[in-house]
Amino acid sequence: MKQLILGGARSGKSALAERLATGMTGDVRYIATAMHQADDTEMVERIRQHRERRPRHWTLIEEPIKLADVIQDNQGEGRCLIVDCLTLWLSNLLLLEDDKQFQLQTETLFSVLSGYRGDLIFVGNEVGMGIVPLGELSRKFQDESGRLHQQLAALCDRVIFTVAGLPLVMKGEAF
Amino acid sequence: MKQLILGGARSGKSALAERLATGMTGDVRYIATAMHQADDTEMVERIRQHRERRPRHWTLIEEPIKLADVIQDNQGEGRCLIVDCLTLWLSNLLLLEDDKQFQLQTETLFSVLSGYRGDLIFVGNEVGMGIVPLGELSRKFQDESGRLHQQLAALCDRVIFTVAGLPLVMKGEAF
Amino acid sequence: MKQLILGGARSGKSALAERLATGMTGDVRYIATAMHQADDTEMVERIRQHRERRPRHWTLIEEPIKLADVIQDNQGEGRCLIVDCLTLWLSNLLLLEDDKQFQLQTETLFSVLSGYRGDLIFVGNEVGMGIVPLGELSRKFQDESGRLHQQLAALCDRVIFTVAGLPLVMKGEAF
Repeated sequence: MKQLILGGARSGKSALAERLATGMTGDVRYIATAMHQADDTEMVERIRQHRERRPRHWTLIEEPIKLADVIQDNQGEGRCLIVDCLTLWLSNLLLLEDDKQFQLQTETLFSVLSGYRGDLIFVGNEVGMGIVPLGELSRKFQDESGRLHQQLAALCDRVIFTVAGLPLVMKGEAF
Repeated sequence: MKQLILGGARSGKSALAERLATGMTGDVRYIATAMHQADDTEMVERIRQHRERRPRHWTLIEEPIKLADVIQDNQGEGRCLIVDCLTLWLSNLLLLEDDKQFQLQTETLFSVLSGYRGDLIFVGNEVGMGIVPLGELSRKFQDESGRLHQQLAALCDRVIFTVAGLPLVMKGEAF
Repeated sequence: MKQLILGGARSGKSALAERLATGMTGDVRYIATAMHQADDTEMVERIRQHRERRPRHWTLIEEPIKLADVIQDNQGEGRCLIVDCLTLWLSNLLLLEDDKQFQLQTETLFSVLSGYRGDLIFVGNEVGMGIVPLGELSRKFQDESGRLHQQLAALCDRVIFTVAGLPLVMKGEAF
């Protein structure tokens, strides 16, 4: 089953993804999309906190850009992939400022997903419900984020919106 | 039936409005509230994309300020009006910096709606769920947007909240 | 019953809290967390509008920081406390720039709530669904707000998400 978890900052998305994965299978591969930068202590601390919460036998894969390839290469029966998160991946892609690369990566993702068999959980930030941002890049990010979520929602079997750690099933079966 | 569709940026509001209108009637009048500016290529491109998606036999009406008058003048049996979108209209109104005009236009809208018979679909952006913005105009915009949505939600028969292209019915019958 | 009402700016949270309290009991104590500043005419005007809407026999308590103590001191059978709002309280706490005080106040709140018997309604702003803000303090505020809401949601019997004045029950019994 392909699932998409969307919600605001600190709304319990990752924790929910981890709970859902734990309930399904023992073989979980966790795909982290954060771009490492030695000087970003805030991000390093977040990543450390996330890592401590996860079971030690989960495999960690770090990939900031080629998400579709990693999903393709790691699919397998009885295995669950968690992608955490779409928002950092999209941000990494947009910062490349390379329209062809952007199109290639997103289209490959949709294509891989269409044929994907197995369990897969995407986590993404809802970023489109505030005041429309002033900068052109911020506006583009907000637009592309919304478009990406719509396309993935159409391809996923279940879509969950989280508020304050509570899940609201927008598509698919309740749990 | 009067319907209000609210959601974040690129959450599938306009596409849902168009689907709902198509399901109801052949006679659709599309009221676009965007203020044209020759130098805003981003907005011109968005408008073009929206236009291409719509059936060619729909009537397009452009009105950035006098929304209530246009709704009043275009009501008719077996016809559906789409207002896309409230947020640009509110923004146009606030940029006039004319409190009397603001009050006149909003009150006329509520009054026209109270007596309105026919199908009408409003589309609006949820802009109040981010960090409270710094500028006074942005804060005023966020406040007035919230107030407008509350008042319209009370006057509408169905209110839908969209996330990632998926509808959540907040008021009225499911579909 | 402990209830948490979350929603965007001007989404009808306070009005809903007041309606719920009115339906439960005559003895309501309203805990306002706004920090008074003589020169903030916008905030003073908001507070005045809120005050005018509430029944005159409700008791008003103003406390910008020591929320847990005030809740503890005012609990009583057949009485309902309204805390309006968590967001201003959190903002007041963070502006102290005193990590120990922050930890003390939040932990005392969770501890008081765990043992709380009686009716209590929290109101809080959803601020995490826009573009991630640039400033470090804004990001911290967004993070702490999300964490606080998650922890309170876990401790409350009912959690309601409001959009355009309409309630969506995320946890607990519908009404």
